[in-house]
Parts: sequence; C-alpha cells; structure tokens
Amino acid sequence: MTIEIISRWKSHGGEQLVCRHPSAATGTDMQFSLFLPAGSGPFPLVTFLSGLTCTHANVTEKGEYRAHCARLGLAFLAPDTSPRGEGVADDPAYDLGQGAGFYVDATEAPWAPHYRMWHYVTEELPALVVGEFPLDLKRQGISGHSMGGHGALTVALRHPGRFQSVSAFAPIAAPTRVPWGEKAFAAYLGADRATWAQHDAVALIEAGGRLPDLLVDVGDADPFLTSQLRPELLQSACEQAGIPLSLNLRPGYDHSYYFISTFMAAHLEWHAARLGR
Amino acid sequence: MTIEIISRWKSHGGEQLVCRHPSAATGTDMQFSLFLPAGSGPFPLVTFLSGLTCTHANVTEKGEYRAHCARLGLAFLAPDTSPRGEGVADDPAYDLGQGAGFYVDATEAPWAPHYRMWHYVTEELPALVVGEFPLDLKRQGISGHSMGGHGALTVALRHPGRFQSVSAFAPIAAPTRVPWGEKAFAAYLGADRATWAQHDAVALIEAGGRLPDLLVDVGDADPFLTSQLRPELLQSACEQAGIPLSLNLRPGYDHSYYFISTFMAAHLEWHAARLGR
Repeated sequence: MTIEIISRWKSHGGEQLVCRHPSAATGTDMQFSLFLPAGSGPFPLVTFLSGLTCTHANVTEKGEYRAHCARLGLAFLAPDTSPRGEGVADDPAYDLGQGAGFYVDATEAPWAPHYRMWHYVTEELPALVVGEFPLDLKRQGISGHSMGGHGALTVALRHPGRFQSVSAFAPIAAPTRVPWGEKAFAAYLGADRATWAQHDAVALIEAGGRLPDLLVDVGDADPFLTSQLRPELLQSACEQAGIPLSLNLRPGYDHSYYFISTFMAAHLEWHAARLGR
Repeated sequence: MTIEIISRWKSHGGEQLVCRHPSAATGTDMQFSLFLPAGSGPFPLVTFLSGLTCTHANVTEKGEYRAHCARLGLAFLAPDTSPRGEGVADDPAYDLGQGAGFYVDATEAPWAPHYRMWHYVTEELPALVVGEFPLDLKRQGISGHSMGGHGALTVALRHPGRFQSVSAFAPIAAPTRVPWGEKAFAAYLGADRATWAQHDAVALIEAGGRLPDLLVDVGDADPFLTSQLRPELLQSACEQAGIPLSLNLRPGYDHSYYFISTFMAAHLEWHAARLGR
C-alpha cells in the first residue's frame, strides 16, 4: 500500500497532513487528513466521519480540533465521504452519490463498483494508517457529524470493543426512518429494508448492539433536527438498552461547523478521558 | 448607512455575523464578518486585516479566534481585502486588483475610482459598526496577516492613540523595498516613491511613527520570509525607535492559516491584556 503525503503543515506544535492513496475498497484514489500531535507516539486515534457534501477538508479547516488534539495527545483522522472522480457514479442531488457515501457498501447498480465506504473506513483505512504512522489502534475513538455521526454510531455498534470512546455531532440517528436515509439506502442497498437495519444506529441498539457510553451534541436550531436527525429515538433506544447517553440539546446552535467547532473541545476531552490521555 | 446581516451563527456562546453594506469609500457593496461574544457589551474590538487573495471568510472559517474571543470578551471584525464585482478594475495576477487592495487609497487609473481601502478600514467601517453593534471603540486593537499585517501596522502607526494593542502575523514590514509592495504601490499610487512611504511600516517608524508595543509572529519556514516579509527590517527600526517589539520566529511554521490559528490565542491574549479584559 502506498500513501502519498500531498500537503504537510506544522500546526499547534504537531503536523497536519493530507494524504492520497489508491484504495482497493473503492477502486479509486482516496484522500484523507491526519493530524499528529508533537512527540513520537504511538498516539491514540480519533476518527471523524464527515457529513453530506464534505471531503476531509471541511473538518480539517473548520473543525478547530488541532489545539485540543495537541493538548490531549490525540491523533485525528478525517476520511472523505465517498469515492470521487470520473468513472464514479454520481447524482445531481447533494444527498446521493459523490459526497454522500453514507458509510455503506453498495450492492446496487450503478453504485456497487465504487461505493464501498463501509469496508474503506472499517478495514482498509485503519490498516493503512497504522502501517505508516505512529498510531495505537488499541486506543481508538470515533466521532462524526450528521451523515458521519450515523457512520460513527453504526461502525462502533458493529465493532464491539474496538472503540473505547464514541461521540457524535447531530447524527442521523435512525436513517431507515428519515428521508435522507431512506433515499440513500434504497439507492445503495436496494428495496429490501431488512438489509438497511445493519446501518441504522437505533435499530442496531434495539437488536442488541451496545456501546460503553456515548456523547451526542445537537443544536435546537438545527433545521434537520426533527425531520432527519431524530435524537429522541436514540435517547429512547439507549434508555431501553441501558447505554449511558450524554445528550446535549444546545440552545441556538444550528447544523454548521460553527456548532461543531464550539463543542469539539468537549468531545475530544470525552475521547481523551477514555483513551488514557 | 445600512448594514444587512446576511449570515448569523451561534458559535462559542456568541454570534458570528457576516454583513453587507453599500460603501461610500469604495462605491461598491462590501462584506465583513463580526464576532460578538456573549453578553450585552459594549465590547472591545480587535480588527483583523487579511492577506492577499482573502475575503472576510478565510480568517472567519480558519482563524480559530472565536473560542478565545468568547473567553476574553473581545469582538472580532474581519473586513474584505478589496472592492469587488463587475465594474471594479482587476488584474489576472493574485497580487494586484481584487483581493489585493493593500490598504491604500489608489490615485492612479484604473484603480482610483474604487480602490479606497485605506479610507474604508480607517474611517467608514469603524463608524459604521459602532453605530450598529455594541462596540467600545475607545478600546481597540488591530492585527492582520501578510498584506493585512502591513495594513495593521501602517493603520496603527498613522493613528496614534487609537489602538491600545497592535499585533501582526507574518507582516509585509517594508513594502516599498519588496516585490509585492513595489508592484502594488506603483500601480495604485504611481511612480513617485515619496507617496509610498506613508504605507510602509518601517519607513513610518524611521520617520517618527510610534506604537506602544508590538507583537509579531512569523514562521521560519514561511516561503516569503526573506523575499517579501523582511521582519529584520522591522526589528531594526523598532530597536532604533525604542518600540518594544516581541518578535517570535516560529520554527517549522509557514505562511498559512495553520500557522495563524496556532498563535491566534497568544495574539488575542496580547490584545485583551491591553484592552482591559
């Protein structure tokens, strides 16, 4: 496997990298960003899965995570949200196709050849980065925003024991029950809703999935709160399952990076406390 | 005067605004961003002048100032770097025309009708914002990056007593002696170099200009360090003039917002300490 470092900046005492590599999972080149704090590591790793329309660049530029990762000694990995490029299926809508991979392995045409983001973020990318950078994958956290909050929750629920810390910003908690998820899963996974449940955090918890605990922040001025995010379904499922959930409804905050960056410090402190930092 | 708030986000407990207004100085609509911390004010104001190619958006998205302004109780104003739009003279180069106003009032064709950024940032914009927002212009700081560092220094030097705190990131310290400044000043101000000296921080200090003190950070991996920035000329002029200069040459840092955001906290603490926060 070959990683090309295409940008490298010193920042907050550490290094912010942007990397490119050929992906076996997607059959395309993929880019990701990785922040390494000062020191020789190996560092605990927090992976951040981004939302609709994003690349690695959005959280890298607007997430305000570096100061806190530097202070807490955390590495921070931000993958892209889909395969991209010529020859990769796409759709004119912002919520399907490139920029909208939804962290699933597509089974349906025209998506199946490249849209394998589940395999990419759960298997290929962790194996790749641990081979190239000073990371300790025995100490891992995962987080994400919106579509990426959905990704973080489902990845953690289906890999018990892999992540010591899990958090999400404004996650799509029950994608099988909201328009964004119904549209994407019908396209990528087909009409049989039974296959969708493996990618729905609330359904996974109801089916026995467990997390050690969970931090979720969502703004009460988020325009997608009641139509797409449905945090009350997550709250109810966690209560039934006995999963300790810290759910913060933040007055006045919306769905943007101005919201994410405000609570990034608290999320990284949550991860650091569970990753031995 | 009319300010239209075109975007408004809650962030770090305060409000990040983006505003548009018709400018008498430039004869165009202008945009700026303003962060107001929580509370009723009036707040001390730090104005940040941005560098080549930037709008208000670059520092607003990548500057990582909000957490610190919120903590310190500072308002943060980020103007655009030039007039823009159809009918406004431009140049294909990145270092002349739109995005490259250099904080001067142009006297030469085709720039003179709209390129009046000196008047805009020193007179029109402060009067406009103090009339509309809870700001205390008796407690003002100014900072900036690169071309905007040049702007911050020259604006402060030519308005003795207006700013209690002055800082800069990688400023163009002596624009009359480096290619960026020579090109821009020849275009905007004409061939007579005598008129240029009013827009050169080192020349202003050598001619008697004074600041209470000054904080400057610059990266030693900045590709423009020796060709365009020349901090050693500023250091020498400050030494001769008895201006206390805290000049930090930061190992490994470049000219980017990854550098700026790293030292933003220290700069805002510098301003806060001098603005009674």
